[in-house]
Amino acid sequence: MPELRQDPVVKRWVIISTERNRRPNDFTDHNNHLPDPKVDPLSEGNEHLTPTEIYAVRNPGSQANKPGWRVRVVPNKYPVLRVEGSLDKEGEGMYDRMNGIGAHEVVVENPRPDLQLEDLPLDHVAAIVETYRTRMTDLLRDLRFRYVLVFKNFGWGAGATLSHPHSQIIATPVTPSVVKQKLVGAQAYFEQKERNIFVDVLKQELKDSRRIVYQNAAFVCFCPYASRFPFELCIMPRRQRADFHKIEPNEVSQLADILKIALLKLRLGLNQPQYNFLIHTAPVRHAKKDYWTTLEEDFCWHIEITPRLTQIAGFEVGTGFYVNPVPPEDAAQFLKDVEV
Amino acid sequence: MPELRQDPVVKRWVIISTERNRRPNDFTDHNNHLPDPKVDPLSEGNEHLTPTEIYAVRNPGSQANKPGWRVRVVPNKYPVLRVEGSLDKEGEGMYDRMNGIGAHEVVVENPRPDLQLEDLPLDHVAAIVETYRTRMTDLLRDLRFRYVLVFKNFGWGAGATLSHPHSQIIATPVTPSVVKQKLVGAQAYFEQKERNIFVDVLKQELKDSRRIVYQNAAFVCFCPYASRFPFELCIMPRRQRADFHKIEPNEVSQLADILKIALLKLRLGLNQPQYNFLIHTAPVRHAKKDYWTTLEEDFCWHIEITPRLTQIAGFEVGTGFYVNPVPPEDAAQFLKDVEV
Repeated sequence: MPELRQDPVVKRWVIISTERNRRPNDFTDHNNHLPDPKVDPLSEGNEHLTPTEIYAVRNPGSQANKPGWRVRVVPNKYPVLRVEGSLDKEGEGMYDRMNGIGAHEVVVENPRPDLQLEDLPLDHVAAIVETYRTRMTDLLRDLRFRYVLVFKNFGWGAGATLSHPHSQIIATPVTPSVVKQKLVGAQAYFEQKERNIFVDVLKQELKDSRRIVYQNAAFVCFCPYASRFPFELCIMPRRQRADFHKIEPNEVSQLADILKIALLKLRLGLNQPQYNFLIHTAPVRHAKKDYWTTLEEDFCWHIEITPRLTQIAGFEVGTGFYVNPVPPEDAAQFLKDVEV
Repeated sequence: MPELRQDPVVKRWVIISTERNRRPNDFTDHNNHLPDPKVDPLSEGNEHLTPTEIYAVRNPGSQANKPGWRVRVVPNKYPVLRVEGSLDKEGEGMYDRMNGIGAHEVVVENPRPDLQLEDLPLDHVAAIVETYRTRMTDLLRDLRFRYVLVFKNFGWGAGATLSHPHSQIIATPVTPSVVKQKLVGAQAYFEQKERNIFVDVLKQELKDSRRIVYQNAAFVCFCPYASRFPFELCIMPRRQRADFHKIEPNEVSQLADILKIALLKLRLGLNQPQYNFLIHTAPVRHAKKDYWTTLEEDFCWHIEITPRLTQIAGFEVGTGFYVNPVPPEDAAQFLKDVEV
């Protein structure tokens, strides 16, 4: 059973993932490799190589766990959290722990190993976004979970261990520490000004315009003012809403459009860099916490896309103090000029 | 002039390092390489290839900027912060910025490019520790600076761009966000219990003993309960003190001993992994801030050593939610058994 442990000083929860337990000698080969694509377990026709599917966008008449799908969601074979069991929160001396209960799903973005998300037609990307929404809505019904993370690691350096294009969903029984910092920061701003900080950021970015990369009817893509990484991108909805899973149908197609264009610009402009994206959404409101009282008004969901062009030095992780060699204004201008 | 910008939501400062500005095309080759060791600018005899030295531990009779040194501190040729100028704090619409004023120094740990810190005799490692102390004490006198970071990146994947064994010192005009989280967490604990959380952690680790790797008269090295990374290590002094630079002479030699042994255990046990270490010390108390009122009592300096055996996935940076595949009890047992 994996375990969740809390750092007593900064209150950061860590997953001690015994399911993925590796012996010390497993680390002495530092060259991890992606698995052989000939036995790609996520390709169409290899459905028997994955656990039973949870959800799929399928052609009419096709059967579950058989070919004929466009997007397919399966449990992660090596989950960082286990779905069965109870949390059993307890102290261990001065420390706090709980069982590593959660969900860990793989969203197979398309049946072919060689087509990336940004290669797919718009309606296919929209089906992926709609899949995120559907799975998040379902997972949030589980009273054990506090937060649902939707993210993508592209490239080994960005944390991917399978080459077949996929994203991941992790439902957790705790709110991740950076999410909590965002909630606390947004609430402090709202209390002071009675305005939503994300709405104000978007207004200022649109007015200033130097950091805007692309916009459509429902979304704006820009390089954040205090970008940690070169060519970091933020996608913000024009309509403020705390929860990603309350996205409306017309927004789904607009999000597909802006996501595809943002990823195409990164690929063409920066030679297919490794990257991560992450949907920042509000936590569940099963329990009442102080920083949730004004959440509908003070928070706004958004997507962070972080290309991995530079190494993350240890002192950046240890201090939260990032050095970014590319001013976001230059990054935005460069990406704006990349024709897709 | 580099620039410091603050994220408006989480209040995290980022250095936009124009001194290191790279054009977008510089990122399209993802294979960064270490410089040619034949022209190692940090070797003895190549003193003319570095900026003028700031400090050195020298053989009697040797001249500054000439051979005859054991440890040498020079300004970083490509500093992330500039030492000349004033902060000029200002708003930019809703955002906050200031000039990137600070210091960025390189501590050349020994004259030879092929000897790592852990290869050096104990008195030489002690001279390096003493150099950290001396430089930190000096930099803290500058009223523009709030914090002094002492750290080491070993290996390209850990952020190193020079192969010659070296550590780095960065003095910053702001307190890094993770440091502030530690201060706030430690203060909250102290207010509740009137006890120092680091002292309590050390007591519990010594009592439990399963996560202890090594200890000597003045220091204890253990794998933290909520380790983010496999084989992560913490070195904590037995004597609680907020500031690293107030370390006493007998502690310097004990710290040299435990640092050398910790690094040797990592190298021998894990095939010379890339790693970072970072000294967590208290910020300067020029200005009065709420969380500094009890700082002498509630904080304790310590060292974090983080081997880089796994990739840091984007969602871990984006959420602060780490997945560690090796329980710290197993990591500690493994490292304890490595004979050095």
